[in-house]
Amino acid sequence: MRILFPELDTPSLLIEKSILEKNISDMQTLMDKYNVKLRPHIKTHKSLELAKMQINAGAVGIACAKVSEAMVFADAGFKDIQIANILIGDKKLENLFYLQKNIDKLSCCVDSIDNARILADFFDNRNKKMDVMIIVDCGYHRCGFSDYSQILKLAQYIKKRNSLNLIGITTHAGQSYSAQSNEERLNIASHEGNLMVHYANKLRKDGIAIQDVTIGSNPTARESCKVKGVTEIRSGNYIFNDLIQVSLGTVKINRCALTVLSQVISIPSKTRVIIDAGSKTFSSDKGAHGNENLIGFGHIIGKNAIIERLSEEHGIIKSNNEKFKIEERLRIIPNHACTTTNSFEKAYIVDRNKVIKEISISARGKIK
Amino acid sequence: MRILFPELDTPSLLIEKSILEKNISDMQTLMDKYNVKLRPHIKTHKSLELAKMQINAGAVGIACAKVSEAMVFADAGFKDIQIANILIGDKKLENLFYLQKNIDKLSCCVDSIDNARILADFFDNRNKKMDVMIIVDCGYHRCGFSDYSQILKLAQYIKKRNSLNLIGITTHAGQSYSAQSNEERLNIASHEGNLMVHYANKLRKDGIAIQDVTIGSNPTARESCKVKGVTEIRSGNYIFNDLIQVSLGTVKINRCALTVLSQVISIPSKTRVIIDAGSKTFSSDKGAHGNENLIGFGHIIGKNAIIERLSEEHGIIKSNNEKFKIEERLRIIPNHACTTTNSFEKAYIVDRNKVIKEISISARGKIK
Repeated sequence: MRILFPELDTPSLLIEKSILEKNISDMQTLMDKYNVKLRPHIKTHKSLELAKMQINAGAVGIACAKVSEAMVFADAGFKDIQIANILIGDKKLENLFYLQKNIDKLSCCVDSIDNARILADFFDNRNKKMDVMIIVDCGYHRCGFSDYSQILKLAQYIKKRNSLNLIGITTHAGQSYSAQSNEERLNIASHEGNLMVHYANKLRKDGIAIQDVTIGSNPTARESCKVKGVTEIRSGNYIFNDLIQVSLGTVKINRCALTVLSQVISIPSKTRVIIDAGSKTFSSDKGAHGNENLIGFGHIIGKNAIIERLSEEHGIIKSNNEKFKIEERLRIIPNHACTTTNSFEKAYIVDRNKVIKEISISARGKIK
Repeated sequence: MRILFPELDTPSLLIEKSILEKNISDMQTLMDKYNVKLRPHIKTHKSLELAKMQINAGAVGIACAKVSEAMVFADAGFKDIQIANILIGDKKLENLFYLQKNIDKLSCCVDSIDNARILADFFDNRNKKMDVMIIVDCGYHRCGFSDYSQILKLAQYIKKRNSLNLIGITTHAGQSYSAQSNEERLNIASHEGNLMVHYANKLRKDGIAIQDVTIGSNPTARESCKVKGVTEIRSGNYIFNDLIQVSLGTVKINRCALTVLSQVISIPSKTRVIIDAGSKTFSSDKGAHGNENLIGFGHIIGKNAIIERLSEEHGIIKSNNEKFKIEERLRIIPNHACTTTNSFEKAYIVDRNKVIKEISISARGKIK
């Protein structure tokens, strides 16, 4: 039996070089074609090295989910960062101020007058205006208003506050993750883009300067970039792609760059095979936003068998006619790349069965 | 509005001191009463400080799920460690050998002849015998055999191998996590204990020395310790307790020591409240072993509202008549303490609303 990657302990995180490069370059080419800025969301990989590849390919900057993530990237020299989230709490605002002093371009999001007031009060005593984007709810029903009059009121409030500078509007069409068909996913993308451009134009007519119209959801990115008036795409998962994206029809499975290398440790019965990776490796995600199309907890490359259960450190494979051996190493495409990557301290860029480079998951676990 | 723990950024991990101490002391007192050794599983907390509290209270040593966890504890001076798992792979065996040289007492588990052979071949060239325990399947159907003749064959094989030393048998009644009633949970505990003692006695009659009969599952620990012939309890979750344990009837909710401190960042509608903690904080666990009794993703202390959805960095609360405010801080008991703790770099021991001490989650993310 040939042992895959004998130099690596298991579980290890592998990134297939050629797929990674193709994923980065294809998305950038598409955005360039439609003259839209690409701002990759680094929550997917949390790696300085991979973000640099995205910037080198043409991305304008990065998006982060948390200030603590942004600090890691700012300290490593990244100069254009958007915190695609609402920031509440003194420590977070102090960190935001630190970032503002140390990088060229920084923005964060607001979605209510209370939220804008807290931010404005904090930046009133600072030298520089804080750039903000208003979150619009385009149907996911997480943060933000969907009602135009409330969005306008918030925009007018921000305009009145000297310490804030409204640079645009932003949205996340998370409902695309529960699309039941490819058609539904494409309709969500079209609705998302058109609604945002419509609101941006209305705000402009109402005297509010809107520069950026930012869209951010991986299942819709490739479609909503085509809507005229959308200026920026904030997408994360495309760098790896995962089983959730495959199940939604966003990409084919040969575009999944990320795999977990795991080892068979036990075969207690003909139909049960145990591997050394569980929920503390894969997370127990079956779709972050409610996608229930996925069967099991990962796709085992080259095997016709399902990872039926996870406990913390074990995966339990249901195998019917497929053969496995103790010591056999498996490459498994995870359901959700973002939560899987966050389980690891480092990853290996590989070219087929050869390790090319070890990289650090530098902002791993930065949840504050 | 009074801000809870204003000195802490959110999300933060809190451990309520009085409950923690009571949980540790009560479990130890119970084990002492039945003259059973307590070997806490540190996968729940991954903290040197908390493990020391358990040892000081009377625990004989610790159990770990992974070699990489054990390395952290060995390097910090822990001398008696059981790896409650099967170890396959050269790097893992090298690490096991390192541990064997550096601590007083070390054991790991085996569940098949292939597995025992790999281990024996490795230790053949080393100076000291490797202590092993045989995993018995008492109904969870993960690792191990449930059939006595297969267990006996494995024990006889181990006995023949000079580099291995069989010290006992062990099991994990993970099926207790899917118990539909308290009665079912107690029946599983009784079955688990009795089966293990029965097998130990059979092995002894068949000429195999069995010293330790180890039981390890939190929902059954308090019951199976009473079965005469059980020598050791390997339990983890009791130090914190979580909503899964409460839902199973193992403990009351006032015995949950672990909470996540999170903050309300947005209230976009009367029934929707957004907090700054999501699946990368809580994990998306609704019960590691298939427990489906839990509603939502955590219990918000003092509030009548459900955490209905999680995305990676957001929790979405469905609130009917309950009032929330932006900036309000919430203490949330997680569904699964073990995966939640693993999301954090550190935790705070608190006494009501006062921070007593910061501790490190030293073996966090050690999944190899």
